[in-house]
Amino acid sequence: MAESFPAFLLDGYRSFMAGPYVEERDRYRNLAENGQHPTTMVIACCDSRSAPETIFDCGPGQLFVMRNVANLVPPFGPDAAYHGTSSAIEFAVIHLEVEHIVVMGHGRCGGIAGALATAAGHAPEGDFIGNWLTMIKDVAGKVEANSLMTQTEQQTALERIVIRQSLGNLLTFPFVKERVDAGRLSLHGAWFDISTGELWTMNGDSGDFIRPD
Amino acid sequence: MAESFPAFLLDGYRSFMAGPYVEERDRYRNLAENGQHPTTMVIACCDSRSAPETIFDCGPGQLFVMRNVANLVPPFGPDAAYHGTSSAIEFAVIHLEVEHIVVMGHGRCGGIAGALATAAGHAPEGDFIGNWLTMIKDVAGKVEANSLMTQTEQQTALERIVIRQSLGNLLTFPFVKERVDAGRLSLHGAWFDISTGELWTMNGDSGDFIRPD
Amino acid sequence: MAESFPAFLLDGYRSFMAGPYVEERDRYRNLAENGQHPTTMVIACCDSRSAPETIFDCGPGQLFVMRNVANLVPPFGPDAAYHGTSSAIEFAVIHLEVEHIVVMGHGRCGGIAGALATAAGHAPEGDFIGNWLTMIKDVAGKVEANSLMTQTEQQTALERIVIRQSLGNLLTFPFVKERVDAGRLSLHGAWFDISTGELWTMNGDSGDFIRPD
Amino acid sequence: MAESFPAFLLDGYRSFMAGPYVEERDRYRNLAENGQHPTTMVIACCDSRSAPETIFDCGPGQLFVMRNVANLVPPFGPDAAYHGTSSAIEFAVIHLEVEHIVVMGHGRCGGIAGALATAAGHAPEGDFIGNWLTMIKDVAGKVEANSLMTQTEQQTALERIVIRQSLGNLLTFPFVKERVDAGRLSLHGAWFDISTGELWTMNGDSGDFIRPD
Repeated sequence: MAESFPAFLLDGYRSFMAGPYVEERDRYRNLAENGQHPTTMVIACCDSRSAPETIFDCGPGQLFVMRNVANLVPPFGPDAAYHGTSSAIEFAVIHLEVEHIVVMGHGRCGGIAGALATAAGHAPEGDFIGNWLTMIKDVAGKVEANSLMTQTEQQTALERIVIRQSLGNLLTFPFVKERVDAGRLSLHGAWFDISTGELWTMNGDSGDFIRPD
Repeated sequence: MAESFPAFLLDGYRSFMAGPYVEERDRYRNLAENGQHPTTMVIACCDSRSAPETIFDCGPGQLFVMRNVANLVPPFGPDAAYHGTSSAIEFAVIHLEVEHIVVMGHGRCGGIAGALATAAGHAPEGDFIGNWLTMIKDVAGKVEANSLMTQTEQQTALERIVIRQSLGNLLTFPFVKERVDAGRLSLHGAWFDISTGELWTMNGDSGDFIRPD
Repeated sequence: MAESFPAFLLDGYRSFMAGPYVEERDRYRNLAENGQHPTTMVIACCDSRSAPETIFDCGPGQLFVMRNVANLVPPFGPDAAYHGTSSAIEFAVIHLEVEHIVVMGHGRCGGIAGALATAAGHAPEGDFIGNWLTMIKDVAGKVEANSLMTQTEQQTALERIVIRQSLGNLLTFPFVKERVDAGRLSLHGAWFDISTGELWTMNGDSGDFIRPD
Repeated sequence: MAESFPAFLLDGYRSFMAGPYVEERDRYRNLAENGQHPTTMVIACCDSRSAPETIFDCGPGQLFVMRNVANLVPPFGPDAAYHGTSSAIEFAVIHLEVEHIVVMGHGRCGGIAGALATAAGHAPEGDFIGNWLTMIKDVAGKVEANSLMTQTEQQTALERIVIRQSLGNLLTFPFVKERVDAGRLSLHGAWFDISTGELWTMNGDSGDFIRPD
């Protein structure tokens, strides 16, 4: 563990300190003294190409961000196991009282590709990923079964279906449902196209993804 | 669910498209066509004040980022439960073959404060957070027991101990240990001081956190 | 005892006479004629790297300085023994009527390291130091017991705890307590980081050490 | 204890950081990393007008400095009491292995004046000072009894006698005597005239104080 810290990260940190930090010094100090009060939680993928702060050009204090493989939200199911995603949701909703939760998926998602490959009989290597993706096994199987769609179309379709599933699962959390019903919390879907930089947002009524003006 | 997408996010997205994206257009396109090949995974906290891409001034494709409450890594323990963090680690190490994993904690962490409060008999409300924080229950208890330290000192101490614990737990994953031993993967700790913007990196031998020159 | 006076001290004295003294000649003369009236007492360590006059850039007449190993203040306890530290405090408070007492500790303190080593079963050699450090035996034992903290972290923690203990012990002196209560005397803590030159001052309410702006 | 840190000290610290520290940055860092190795211990008075680092123009790492009222060294006498001065001597000689110990007195010393006043029947107020000065009660009595000397002459005479007594007491410490005999440690006396800035050094053979060329 004695290797030195990656040089590109230290260089990046120095750029941050010389640039953005200088402009945001007071904001950081204020956020330290008064705590964070983000209005919005984003549940996004770990993918290196889909950082919410970058895509939404957000600064410190704005977004509470949970990231896991394929931006999945499991259904409500408290038990003795460690629930990283559910814990983050609970923290954001109950303790930080966010007003918005955005589930943001993206194109060319490796996790989604893994789910489709599994459905096609080629499960990814490993002890955890396979099990993690069983959360979307059913929907992946249905998409994969439709051989009329190209692989790319299947991939995009599943990426969007999974966003809707995550939003649906969010509503299985009583403390989410209750606040959504009371109009104190709203849920949103978004899909980022890495290739073109386009952001597609989900229409909450129809579930369709469209490019906003 | 029909509420419109948060305006500040759409505004931010437009800023992104008008600025950074223009400069990085080719990079995004290239990353879409050739896939992501990040050299580094960062395991960070969901906190709105500690976005790795911001602090390390990293662009698309550079960091594979897992974020959960208090940047915890559970010990290796595959079973039927959903393991979001372990899945992300597995994906990064086995599928993306990252060369570095950085566990980045930060000052004034709400999760760490929750663990200390629990040790002091004031468990946070909710179904998940309490259980999630049992992962650091033992170390929190030991720190909280030292009443000679102020609350702030306990908090900083635990933040750093938890980073070391997460790094230690990473080594319980056989596929991590094997690559670390072979010199193909290195593990790093970092702690970000929200108040001052200072980044402290961990000395892998001693476990101490220091500010790099 | 016939060895000649160390040459570097005579050289240093000549520099003093050729430089600072020339500028302060009247001040020295005035201080000789009218006596010293320092507003502030500093209780510091003997360490060669933590001279209060240097760190606070103070000239003649400004600081009444007690220095002992690890800047310890014993609890009030007049008896037939020689009490060097208590005598200095009494002289400063009752006779000089200082308005401030600053207890200044510092990083990498050998006395603090000795107290931690003693707690770990390795008492330093000698007839006096071991007994002197029993004054902080309890707190050193509690810090040393937390094996989750690195040696460096334990050292810094104890350095700060000892400053708080010394400040607490100051309040056991009736003539200190009385003046503090009457608002005529105030007590302060400070910690000097030899490595970086940073001075951390103690918040009197929380006991936390922070770097002033 | 919540009063803010004295402003003149913070101002002084800023001057130090802007000036001397900049020039000595590497020295401080080096002293932090490699520890202190002063060749010389100075036993001086707490008086605000006699800071050894100022008078000898010494920088960080050069002088290990014990300061108490009237620069007294008690005779060797280990017991259960706290011995601040003896502990500092032991630390300097046994652990730091200094080559020189300088006992530096000074003109217009309040402690010496107090000893003379006590001898004349006017003991200073307080629980500690009176007892501390019993260490020089005998010599003060003899000086005070000589009414042929003016008060000023008595004062200067006692200041120098006390330096010689402290040097004599140093030799009652076995670990000091042994090293002095072996030529590994040498003892020196000095007296600083606040009024003129003159430093008088003691001739080790005769005990006389002279002004060096």
